[in-house]
Amino acid sequence: MPAAHGKQFTLYSHPGGPNGWKVTFVLEELCLSYETIYLDFGKGAQKAPEHTKYNPNGRIPTLIDHHNNDFVIWESCAIMLYLVQKYDKENKLYVSDFNDQALVNQYLFFQASGQGPYFGQAFWFEKNHPEKLQSAIDRYKNEIIRVLSVLETILADKEWLVGGKPTIADLSFITWDLIVIDLGILNGFKDFDLEKDFPLVLNWHKKVCEIPSVKRSLEVRAKVMASSH
Amino acid sequence: MPAAHGKQFTLYSHPGGPNGWKVTFVLEELCLSYETIYLDFGKGAQKAPEHTKYNPNGRIPTLIDHHNNDFVIWESCAIMLYLVQKYDKENKLYVSDFNDQALVNQYLFFQASGQGPYFGQAFWFEKNHPEKLQSAIDRYKNEIIRVLSVLETILADKEWLVGGKPTIADLSFITWDLIVIDLGILNGFKDFDLEKDFPLVLNWHKKVCEIPSVKRSLEVRAKVMASSH
Repeated sequence: MPAAHGKQFTLYSHPGGPNGWKVTFVLEELCLSYETIYLDFGKGAQKAPEHTKYNPNGRIPTLIDHHNNDFVIWESCAIMLYLVQKYDKENKLYVSDFNDQALVNQYLFFQASGQGPYFGQAFWFEKNHPEKLQSAIDRYKNEIIRVLSVLETILADKEWLVGGKPTIADLSFITWDLIVIDLGILNGFKDFDLEKDFPLVLNWHKKVCEIPSVKRSLEVRAKVMASSH
Repeated sequence: MPAAHGKQFTLYSHPGGPNGWKVTFVLEELCLSYETIYLDFGKGAQKAPEHTKYNPNGRIPTLIDHHNNDFVIWESCAIMLYLVQKYDKENKLYVSDFNDQALVNQYLFFQASGQGPYFGQAFWFEKNHPEKLQSAIDRYKNEIIRVLSVLETILADKEWLVGGKPTIADLSFITWDLIVIDLGILNGFKDFDLEKDFPLVLNWHKKVCEIPSVKRSLEVRAKVMASSH
């Protein structure tokens, strides 16, 4: 059934949340029409019934596909997979080989279970936790460095994670890496030096950010983040 | 190329690690032949070159498929998907409908990014962290309760997560739930009462544990955990 806004998709997202933008990247690359609803976390809108009736986890992103009988799906990496498997017939951001598809899954799960949570917890204990717990902050900053080291090792013999081309696997890491690259959460931690210690990760990150659909999305992100402050 | 042990798969795992058993469940259900190598975490075997040459993340599980040109894949949920998509032609643990497959992905990512990390961090701060940080312990115990609440809501109108039958989505939650159910990590926390507050989750958990392949795997798990102490 068509939505009032007339677009194919409704995307529930948040300007500062890293995960919503993963979905935007894919929608932009595939030239699909969508309306983004930015939920006001300050008012707990993500946990209000208007949203949790779609996503019981009360987090963003949540996607509704109005051209698929209002099919609802949440979890950013699952949404990325849904979009490429259903709408990316030319494999702009996906791969056709079965083994390569399995490796896309592998890296998406590494991002979702390895990168996201550790980077997120470092940010939590640095910025939001009600008391300063230095050993907890250190734990998660050390984990960020470990995850960056794993990525540096992986990128030693390949330009892109899977299939010699950019895929949703590469795109999934970008907005979390910005916590290190833009927000500088590791600045002054031990002798952390991104450029010196993780040149392959940094170069790969920059290349992903230069993909036109990603670049466009990040420009929108900058605008909505600025206007939401 | 065949492995020296003659089985189709080599599985790198750990007795006490929740994630390796997810893979065992699927291998057992699909009657596939495999050799499990339990890595000695005390000696850092998961981070030794003999393992990281397959899995640069240095964690378990890692699977090698000797009938697919020694294809290597890591991340437990990605391995579950690989196995059912390649070898589960009768959909014993999978679903044929595209939308349902997308929902399997959704719940696997919820498990991997939502359940696993929070349950794991609660365990870390309760058992392993070098100092006692009560507000960190409380944070993660509260998150476990939140995740259980989300599952209770999801299970209110369905017996199984997807497609009206057990799938890898259901199986993925079990060994982490055991941290609450068997290890009792929430015992004495606030007025936590699993049976009273989360009856649907508990019932679902028990039903999954009664699936013969899961039951068999959990019996092996109990034995190797006992002998590894």
